[in-house]
Amino acid sequence: MIATTPPYYAVIFSSRRNDGDHDYAATAEAMVRLASQQAGFLGLESVRDADGNGITVSYWESEAAIADWRRNAEHTQARQRGRAQWYAAFSVRVARVDRAYGTELASPA
Amino acid sequence: MIATTPPYYAVIFSSRRNDGDHDYAATAEAMVRLASQQAGFLGLESVRDADGNGITVSYWESEAAIADWRRNAEHTQARQRGRAQWYAAFSVRVARVDRAYGTELASPA
Repeated sequence: MIATTPPYYAVIFSSRRNDGDHDYAATAEAMVRLASQQAGFLGLESVRDADGNGITVSYWESEAAIADWRRNAEHTQARQRGRAQWYAAFSVRVARVDRAYGTELASPA
Repeated sequence: MIATTPPYYAVIFSSRRNDGDHDYAATAEAMVRLASQQAGFLGLESVRDADGNGITVSYWESEAAIADWRRNAEHTQARQRGRAQWYAAFSVRVARVDRAYGTELASPA
């Protein structure tokens, strides 16, 4: 679980991968590392199944922190490659988390 | 993509499965079917990887629709089995989606 108490913010990224790696795995790993260093980053959960369907949810202190991450140059370049090459389809949703509960989940970030 | 324009609501359910099925797959399928019939249900995205890590995000018109689904008797029973038997760890987050964009994603629901 993320230690922070709501409200905080979530970016829900759902995607379906195209075939072939094309630097995807290395870039995805680099993006997680970069995001983790951003001010206001709270944590990340990411799952992809064998069919190439993935959901990644990143958590942030504020909408300003999300906007800063969006402006990061390497992240901007990665998003462009994602649209052009890696993803057959994707959706992004920005949401305000109002309530959170559960057991401990190790942060994959 | 979900046709509805924000704001709408998301329930982000992250979990790690225990070993063994114990009626999990059949119940999960039944819950998706049941949820889809609830008033205010907008859609669902669900991914689980080979290691048993899963993220399911369900989308709802209102917080009242989420509360109604939470009170559904079969769903309540499934949640109890989930805590007792199926999940090594889980977290639930209720969030208000303020912005959404992307390409078309087939709804898995």
